[in-house]
Amino acid sequence: MKQIGFIGLGTMGRPMALNILNAGYPLRVYNRTKSKMEPLMAAGAQVADSCREAATGADVVITMVSDSADVQDVVLGADGALAGCHKGAVIIDMSTISPSVASEIAVACDEKGVKFLDAPVTGGETGAINATLSIMVGGDADTLESVQSVLAVVGDKITYMGLNGSGQSAKLCNQVICALNILAVSEGLAMGEAAGLDTSKLLEAVRGGAAGSWILDNLAPKMIARDWAPGFRVTLQQKDVRLALEAAAQHLLPLFGTSAAHQVMRVAEAKGWGDEGTQAIIKAVKAIADRL
Amino acid sequence: MKQIGFIGLGTMGRPMALNILNAGYPLRVYNRTKSKMEPLMAAGAQVADSCREAATGADVVITMVSDSADVQDVVLGADGALAGCHKGAVIIDMSTISPSVASEIAVACDEKGVKFLDAPVTGGETGAINATLSIMVGGDADTLESVQSVLAVVGDKITYMGLNGSGQSAKLCNQVICALNILAVSEGLAMGEAAGLDTSKLLEAVRGGAAGSWILDNLAPKMIARDWAPGFRVTLQQKDVRLALEAAAQHLLPLFGTSAAHQVMRVAEAKGWGDEGTQAIIKAVKAIADRL
Repeated sequence: MKQIGFIGLGTMGRPMALNILNAGYPLRVYNRTKSKMEPLMAAGAQVADSCREAATGADVVITMVSDSADVQDVVLGADGALAGCHKGAVIIDMSTISPSVASEIAVACDEKGVKFLDAPVTGGETGAINATLSIMVGGDADTLESVQSVLAVVGDKITYMGLNGSGQSAKLCNQVICALNILAVSEGLAMGEAAGLDTSKLLEAVRGGAAGSWILDNLAPKMIARDWAPGFRVTLQQKDVRLALEAAAQHLLPLFGTSAAHQVMRVAEAKGWGDEGTQAIIKAVKAIADRL
Repeated sequence: MKQIGFIGLGTMGRPMALNILNAGYPLRVYNRTKSKMEPLMAAGAQVADSCREAATGADVVITMVSDSADVQDVVLGADGALAGCHKGAVIIDMSTISPSVASEIAVACDEKGVKFLDAPVTGGETGAINATLSIMVGGDADTLESVQSVLAVVGDKITYMGLNGSGQSAKLCNQVICALNILAVSEGLAMGEAAGLDTSKLLEAVRGGAAGSWILDNLAPKMIARDWAPGFRVTLQQKDVRLALEAAAQHLLPLFGTSAAHQVMRVAEAKGWGDEGTQAIIKAVKAIADRL
């Protein structure tokens, strides 16, 4: 069975690594904050002192970190995964980062005879725990084929999008849609409140029709209940939308709505709500008008 | 059985009037363009020469026209419905108009002893034909009770929102959410195209997750197929969002996303796509970048 290295044991990475371990794969993990490796060690994983060591002897190395610079660091750094990989190994980055950075990392890996896939996910912490993530993959189709059985342990929907970078491009399109759907519900409910409506009745009246969405079903009730516990944090949604706007700019594509959504998220961060769930974006809409 | 007057036999009004007729209500219709009354006449409705005449002898008068000024005209004009109504009659405006204009019309009706409900609908032409509209009602609760059986003939979900104007407020909140959900899918798919993705694969990857919506399910396939036939026309969506922004302004509530969506709809109209379906908004997103 393939030896797996896993780098990045955050909210998403930890349950994904546990699912890989529980599927019977020999697993060696690395995380910058050492204490986060303990649950994996307790479950039977080996622990590495560096990304390089996590990758040494591995057939597949999975990275699950935050942003483009983090992936560059854990893969290409002096003590990074690529330095530990043998030829023919496959590095799968499942973080959400810049498509063009993903392409650059793929080139650097290729020069060392290592395969690289960008394979970001949607589905959140719940999807990570239940192994129901949707995985969007960019890179060589044969390489995907060779690791399909590993990915099937963490997700239940794997879509091959094309060349390296296209997995990340697909994820950023997903985040553009999510961000604007969140702003849609935020502005719709904020307007309802301003007009003096009972927002629970409003939700009842509009759900199930053309205004319906996953965001309406899942986040509108939290907005109405003023429950700001994360789910998916504002600061990460903001980061993904920033990446989307940067990528769109590279294609010379102005995105007026996404840009407005990004600025509203910046308001939420400025107000100190970055670590709350994305439903807190309605507070930013109301804060702009001092309607808290 | 109540005598019904029905004013405005457009895309929505005609099937609604037919459903009322088919439920056995005596019906007298009026439409400015006379030829549009012929199908109703053929089905057994009486035809009036004015709004006033359509309302004469009616227990309930329903208006289904385009904008605030149209409702003011057909209800309050010299030859309007109010002039024909007897005391105790109920006028139900099912158009989408300004909440504050709806409140003003209610006051004018009340002064003549006539009840007024604002009762805009969602569900589109299909909902009008199948009598599955969702109806959001503002006005006196007892008045709603007295006409509930008539409304149940055109819709299957009736939500009482509160005082006059609140039905319209709820509808505008619905339209804010719809407009931003449309912009969400438009910007997400436009970005996917710009990145060289296969947008059908992209749709497959993102639907069913947090990006999911009625708009994604129903309009994204049309965007991908470049099928611009309406559904709901850009120009009407733009009008509803304009009303929403005007209402929000009265509440001193800035809506950054809705405002961006409105400007993109103005681009679509400027390009000559106002009579196409709202899925054509993706063309405006691409046209801004000259990416047609």
